[in-house]
Amino acid sequence: MKSKHIPRATIQRLAVYLQVLEALNDEEIEVVSSEALARACDVNPSQIRKDLAYFGEFGVRGVGYYVAKLIQSIKVSLGTDRIWRTALIGVGNLGRSLLRYKGFPKRGFQVVAAFDCDPFKIGETIAGLEVMCPRRMKENVKDMRIEIGIITTPTDRAQRAANYLVESDIHCILNFSAARIHVPDHVFVEYVDFFHHLYALTFKLNTSAVQRFESFSKN
Amino acid sequence: MKSKHIPRATIQRLAVYLQVLEALNDEEIEVVSSEALARACDVNPSQIRKDLAYFGEFGVRGVGYYVAKLIQSIKVSLGTDRIWRTALIGVGNLGRSLLRYKGFPKRGFQVVAAFDCDPFKIGETIAGLEVMCPRRMKENVKDMRIEIGIITTPTDRAQRAANYLVESDIHCILNFSAARIHVPDHVFVEYVDFFHHLYALTFKLNTSAVQRFESFSKN
Repeated sequence: MKSKHIPRATIQRLAVYLQVLEALNDEEIEVVSSEALARACDVNPSQIRKDLAYFGEFGVRGVGYYVAKLIQSIKVSLGTDRIWRTALIGVGNLGRSLLRYKGFPKRGFQVVAAFDCDPFKIGETIAGLEVMCPRRMKENVKDMRIEIGIITTPTDRAQRAANYLVESDIHCILNFSAARIHVPDHVFVEYVDFFHHLYALTFKLNTSAVQRFESFSKN
Repeated sequence: MKSKHIPRATIQRLAVYLQVLEALNDEEIEVVSSEALARACDVNPSQIRKDLAYFGEFGVRGVGYYVAKLIQSIKVSLGTDRIWRTALIGVGNLGRSLLRYKGFPKRGFQVVAAFDCDPFKIGETIAGLEVMCPRRMKENVKDMRIEIGIITTPTDRAQRAANYLVESDIHCILNFSAARIHVPDHVFVEYVDFFHHLYALTFKLNTSAVQRFESFSKN
């Protein structure tokens, strides 16, 4: 790896490149020009070159990119050329929907355990997984070699879920709940919040309404 | 509004500030120091000041921020001091889970219509909404004053869903599907993909494993 300090936006774009490349691969397209790839990803070709340069040299002059090879290289760079075993805590609507989601393995992840503290949910089977009590988490995490925890609890239970994960020696947490959680420094937390995408839309709508109003006033 | 070119990362952080402030508000905390707010949001105080400066002056020297007032100001800035009416297309696992999600109104959104082209789903009622055929979208969007479309279809149906939305004169699309979609220039699209958060985690795990290995090799 050339550098350990990869900007967050680059990782975000690598995820897009990977999605587009896999769609091309599904269509059995073997080679893609950097222009065509850039267009499909909604970025400019120099951005793609710059992003990939963090990890090495990938493009072939006059040809473009070999699709399957580039998919593999990006996966190696992101660490998803293997399957990461994850546990999910909080079997509500969102938790259930994620447990049933079939897209995980293709992208390098597998949910292998589900936890919920609700006695009415413990023992229930969802997508082949038996919901377990979080008190049993520590033993299960070790036995099942789980490395990532996914929190899908309501806001007020997120910190407790995080505590269970930390006590079970999990160092990576993906938090879907609306709560900010507090963990020791060696634990990485990522927050998923799709509302900022909605805010970006309403912000644009608002701004363009203001612009329309301004150009209307000028006439 | 001072500027129309607000960096994307700022909008993302405003969403975090809003969440933290609303949690404080729920606890009936009226004033927060910029240090405490920064700590709760996991950023430094100067970042908050810089982000808020796009929209005006908010902090009170020696006091900090008035929670309820700052919530309102951020909402005005983002355009979410009102309710945006949205329609959802694709009533699968994710679509159902979003339809049942109770967090929309608090954050300025309401899903008022659900569409699916599956004849077995049309007519079904989910969270009080009757699933409709997308062929009826155009009339409904107008009658129901819908401004934002949410795509939760499988990948291969996302473009068709987008076409329906564009034909119905919707200018803002939130796309949860894995497909890149093509729309006219005047239409804004936001892609939701939580996998880049997982990639950020695996990338960190990989990097710290490499670092551990390197420091081990040196000893």
